[in-house]
Amino acid sequence: MKEAVIGIDIGGTYTKYGIVDREGNCLVEGYTNTSTHANFDDYLKDLCHAIANSMQNLKGTIEIRGVGMGAPNGNYYSGSIENAANLNWRGEIRVVEKMRKYYPELTVVLTNDANAAAIGEMVFGGAKNMKDFIVITLGTGLGSGLVVGGTLVYGNDGFAGELGHIIAQLNGRECGCGRKGCLETYASASGIRRTVYWLLSERQIDSELRDVSFNDLTAKMISEAALRGDPIAREAFDYTGWVLGSKLADTVAHSSPEAIFLLGGLANSKELIIQPTKKYMEESLLPIFRNKVKILLSSLPDMNAGVLGAGALVWNELNLHK
Amino acid sequence: MKEAVIGIDIGGTYTKYGIVDREGNCLVEGYTNTSTHANFDDYLKDLCHAIANSMQNLKGTIEIRGVGMGAPNGNYYSGSIENAANLNWRGEIRVVEKMRKYYPELTVVLTNDANAAAIGEMVFGGAKNMKDFIVITLGTGLGSGLVVGGTLVYGNDGFAGELGHIIAQLNGRECGCGRKGCLETYASASGIRRTVYWLLSERQIDSELRDVSFNDLTAKMISEAALRGDPIAREAFDYTGWVLGSKLADTVAHSSPEAIFLLGGLANSKELIIQPTKKYMEESLLPIFRNKVKILLSSLPDMNAGVLGAGALVWNELNLHK
Repeated sequence: MKEAVIGIDIGGTYTKYGIVDREGNCLVEGYTNTSTHANFDDYLKDLCHAIANSMQNLKGTIEIRGVGMGAPNGNYYSGSIENAANLNWRGEIRVVEKMRKYYPELTVVLTNDANAAAIGEMVFGGAKNMKDFIVITLGTGLGSGLVVGGTLVYGNDGFAGELGHIIAQLNGRECGCGRKGCLETYASASGIRRTVYWLLSERQIDSELRDVSFNDLTAKMISEAALRGDPIAREAFDYTGWVLGSKLADTVAHSSPEAIFLLGGLANSKELIIQPTKKYMEESLLPIFRNKVKILLSSLPDMNAGVLGAGALVWNELNLHK
Repeated sequence: MKEAVIGIDIGGTYTKYGIVDREGNCLVEGYTNTSTHANFDDYLKDLCHAIANSMQNLKGTIEIRGVGMGAPNGNYYSGSIENAANLNWRGEIRVVEKMRKYYPELTVVLTNDANAAAIGEMVFGGAKNMKDFIVITLGTGLGSGLVVGGTLVYGNDGFAGELGHIIAQLNGRECGCGRKGCLETYASASGIRRTVYWLLSERQIDSELRDVSFNDLTAKMISEAALRGDPIAREAFDYTGWVLGSKLADTVAHSSPEAIFLLGGLANSKELIIQPTKKYMEESLLPIFRNKVKILLSSLPDMNAGVLGAGALVWNELNLHK
């Protein structure tokens, strides 16, 4: 029998899951809806039912060792999701405790989605041989997972690694957290849209993006326009790279990582975002850190990075305690 | 026989040393000159001679287990001091290798002075029961040591924890590192002097500090003036606390510590610096971190915190490998 774990990636709209072996292969994948369930218990019942169905064909060939979950505001210490803005369920949801009722014999672990991505990068991805690195997810917001000496940084309360909410500009753009100028209001798929609109207001130059409404605009459209040479789109990437790169220089001064991995929506623009981020980070770094820190794309497939990360989370846990 | 270690604190002018037992008592203390030796080998010979002399009276009562050293730019991984601006010796000085010739049987460890202070706080001080905390030294510059999960953060190259060189203000004050706006140009004993002079230029209000030249001004004088109610001195502390507190909020978003300890020259102003730092940090924190992070004075005696830290460094190393 082959050993495997269940990896679950809880997103605002969909929950993806997969059966993940030790090598990072997804033996089976599937998804359920997240946002259609007002009640967490109902959601969990449907999710576990779907997982059981998906595993039918693997019966007798695999032994499930554990369940790993990544979720917005998932707390590793408490095993709870706490006040996640993008999920239906308010207050503290005791996810690990509830999940253990479905898998009473198994190790069940929860963390936030960016931390899961970082552990995925360490166990299955480009950070396999690294002890000190950072993963930055550039989606609707900016998430991050910090790894120091081979261990994910959870901090005193389990909420460490909130780089999306370091202040990039004093009294800057309004953020969903209630404050102003947070890094994620600039460096994220949403942030670059705001930058495009700011540039459209500042510049007189023509741009294909002048025909797109704010709500219709996507990071992908900005990326495609930049590749066609659109000046506003190109400046938007340069500006985004400047904000992100200069703040990453401060992050390097904290933990001196070997590499910083980017993934998520905006990272799909690849060199368009990597190149200015790297350039401005180098310009901003304290001399002793220059030409040492790699900016890399995550080597996990964007499609199921969350599932692999959640699987890696529990594999990592099993390795720690064996 | 009682077990003890040698703790050595290499500063720009003096090198302090002490024999430190497991409980953090300094059984013997002494110092030699640092700046009078142009050649490191001569310096080391004199230092080891002085240590041997100081230990005469303890002969037969103690067994020395190791040597711990804290020094500007001391690198834990390489065992070298690398291009320290405040020391006479240029290039890479292989301190651990050279020290082992004097103590061939012993564990010899080097790190930078702020890291040694952090380990001192963990082993002997106020962080004894903490796993996640930060120590900030507010002297001529701003040094820092980050502890995550009970382990000091060295990073990929051994230079992690350079919080003095995160950017507090874009295109701000000139820094010794060649860049502009580094945190230590505002939040340090030197930084607050610069702030006083900036405020004297901005404000019209009378101040006793208008009679003091820049070179004569000390952090202690500013502290004493503030206690007498001098408006410029009071505003200087408020401004320093604002810069430090708002940047510490970003640091909390990285590693979510239980406490941040202040020590060194400016920290001797106690509540004058603690109070505004705490206030502005709280105002700047992401809501999930509010009212969780303590700002504390180091509980190590300022006089020999460096020696105790260096001693703690090697005790910590011996504990890790026993």
